[in-house]
Amino acid sequence: MQAEIITIGDEILIGQILDTNSKWIAEELNKIGISVYQITSIQDDSEHILKALKEAQSNATIVIITGGLGPTKDDITKHTLAEYFNSPLELNESIVEQIKQLFAKSNYPFSELNRQQALVPTKCTPLQNNYGTAPGMWFEEDEKIVISLPGVPNEMKGLMQEEVLPKIQKKYTLPFIIHQTVLTYGMGESVVAEKIEDWEDALPSYIKLAYLPAYGKLRLRLSAKGSNKQVLEKSLKDEISKLQTIIGSIIIGLHESETIESAVGELLIQNNCTVSTAESCTGGAIAKRLTAIAGASAYFVGSIISYSEKIKTQELNVSKDLIKRHSVVSAEVAEAMAVGIQKKYQTNYAISTTGNAGPTTDKTDKTVGVVFIAIATPTGVFSKEFFFGKPRQKVIERTSNKALEMLRKEIIENS
Amino acid sequence: MQAEIITIGDEILIGQILDTNSKWIAEELNKIGISVYQITSIQDDSEHILKALKEAQSNATIVIITGGLGPTKDDITKHTLAEYFNSPLELNESIVEQIKQLFAKSNYPFSELNRQQALVPTKCTPLQNNYGTAPGMWFEEDEKIVISLPGVPNEMKGLMQEEVLPKIQKKYTLPFIIHQTVLTYGMGESVVAEKIEDWEDALPSYIKLAYLPAYGKLRLRLSAKGSNKQVLEKSLKDEISKLQTIIGSIIIGLHESETIESAVGELLIQNNCTVSTAESCTGGAIAKRLTAIAGASAYFVGSIISYSEKIKTQELNVSKDLIKRHSVVSAEVAEAMAVGIQKKYQTNYAISTTGNAGPTTDKTDKTVGVVFIAIATPTGVFSKEFFFGKPRQKVIERTSNKALEMLRKEIIENS
Repeated sequence: MQAEIITIGDEILIGQILDTNSKWIAEELNKIGISVYQITSIQDDSEHILKALKEAQSNATIVIITGGLGPTKDDITKHTLAEYFNSPLELNESIVEQIKQLFAKSNYPFSELNRQQALVPTKCTPLQNNYGTAPGMWFEEDEKIVISLPGVPNEMKGLMQEEVLPKIQKKYTLPFIIHQTVLTYGMGESVVAEKIEDWEDALPSYIKLAYLPAYGKLRLRLSAKGSNKQVLEKSLKDEISKLQTIIGSIIIGLHESETIESAVGELLIQNNCTVSTAESCTGGAIAKRLTAIAGASAYFVGSIISYSEKIKTQELNVSKDLIKRHSVVSAEVAEAMAVGIQKKYQTNYAISTTGNAGPTTDKTDKTVGVVFIAIATPTGVFSKEFFFGKPRQKVIERTSNKALEMLRKEIIENS
Repeated sequence: MQAEIITIGDEILIGQILDTNSKWIAEELNKIGISVYQITSIQDDSEHILKALKEAQSNATIVIITGGLGPTKDDITKHTLAEYFNSPLELNESIVEQIKQLFAKSNYPFSELNRQQALVPTKCTPLQNNYGTAPGMWFEEDEKIVISLPGVPNEMKGLMQEEVLPKIQKKYTLPFIIHQTVLTYGMGESVVAEKIEDWEDALPSYIKLAYLPAYGKLRLRLSAKGSNKQVLEKSLKDEISKLQTIIGSIIIGLHESETIESAVGELLIQNNCTVSTAESCTGGAIAKRLTAIAGASAYFVGSIISYSEKIKTQELNVSKDLIKRHSVVSAEVAEAMAVGIQKKYQTNYAISTTGNAGPTTDKTDKTVGVVFIAIATPTGVFSKEFFFGKPRQKVIERTSNKALEMLRKEIIENS
């Protein structure tokens, strides 16, 4: 079974925005056993849409279109689809109601333009959008499917997960593709590749392995494809067991949605422990990640973002003398910050960060990219020095990843 | 003058990697006055490449292909181009020398696979790659150009900047394309569209307008195309002036890279003011954005992430009684939090957030998605209630955007 993806929008063709939708859709389709033949980005132009749609339908059974469904004039996808399927637009009252309900909850007024979003071609099955005003549209003709979705990523994703993927799976008998992600932290891609080389070479032909590295973490994705689900599941399970014996110490989790912060959260709950953070160079990035998880209030107590020296001394009880002697970017200050927040917020664990994220060296005497991370535990405190290079955003990201990795290790050792 | 971009590689179609090359190439082409008609991502497959290339050449004068030029066997672009142009591969000795020199600088041995990279179709002009082993290729036939580049981003960029763009500019007399982005906050797309309808209808034919909305912010992009740069610049300037008179109050900035946090940062510096945040439901997301900007230490003092009630009472001086009477998600608590951090950290301004980001209602009595934001200013404090729906990540993002928008307005009014 093949699909094609068409993204509509001049903003992609002038290079203003990066098309992340196609990647996400391609990944989701592959997960349910549908391969993507081609991805095409085209202009907000009726003639171009018609041409691309015809071409895509000649190659693939399923065509997914994103973009061009907003309420403003540059959005012409819907009218073009009405023309393509020779199906006039009609006001759908139940969609009007959905949109009104959405607006009733927000502070924005419902306008005439919004009502027009409820106009859909008569031949289509509208798909309910729970995250925005533009409904998705599902067309079926001659055993082929065309699906039109809004381009706003969270609306597109919601519609795909709640409507499109289940409908496709219901309609077709697809081969089983099972993916198993192994999240690892703390070892580089080439080192991991060397360690697991023999295991990788011995994988059965129906299991493929991919390396997905990013800023201190590395995901390994195994994909098994075949007609017998039980065989695939058992085979994947066996391979993961073997992998555990080789690199078990760096494996954080085995779920696609697993993150280091969710793994830390689970460990804290299991051990009935709490955590706080005192962040300087990460400026709240670690707290943001810990609190992005639903239910974080069970273990996350709070943070102090001590961006200025004054907050470090006044609120975290780091002595001025210590800063003067060792510099604000030092192991000693990092450790004092971690102990400071741990005591003040009375948590079992605490993370602290201090470093120079750049681009200039500011008032510190440390090279851009130098970071100290400290972890306070129920039994003590320790810190490590790192060099995370540049640019600023990468330093912040790598520091957050490493800090959470260090914390996880400590919780395991102390439990 | 139109171009098409073709990216070759199965890894894009299975959603394993994000195609960032196309965006970059599209942006660079637009800067020199070439518009991109279509971007197509296809498989590492000879038949598919031939088909896409033929199609692209029928639409555009220039076709740029990336990917499929590496030394391993799944890279077949070069052989396919030789077939397409009916031009046999021949060893190019000067490319052999270039590759050998490149290897001499590194620690890797020169292999037979590397020598094969110097095989190029006789009809092409090879383009020197200073960052890797695969040369670029430039084909000219019937007044049309096909350029093939490696897919590794830094090699592709080097070849584009050093070879391709200068050669294109030398060959053609190109029109000017100037883009101007207007960043707005605080008004929905459909409301803005209604307000500026007359202005939009009266735009000269050579200026196009696009709406790019996301989570409480809306970018308007004007693109002017023509042969006289001065005329375009003046015309854009005039249109922006008119736009300022209609929706000036919601315009944050006029630069592509401008963000609400950078605008707030500049305002704080101009007014010699400082800011702190007390974040509950945003969990550090606002602090993270304020500190993501280099030089933030000039105005950002610090934050308290008061995730637990205890931290709200103990550190932010919010009375237990107030929480009991009004609920922890309330205007009263939000205002007390903002004043608490403003006093404690002695800043001119302070932001606070308290709300229920979901997915469950937790211990609060408030619906998921309800958020209170308070702003403390040098003259007082106020708060507003919002409903930001779901999912959790969107609530956090919209709260952060709205809080920064509210803060910006206050700084302007107080200065």
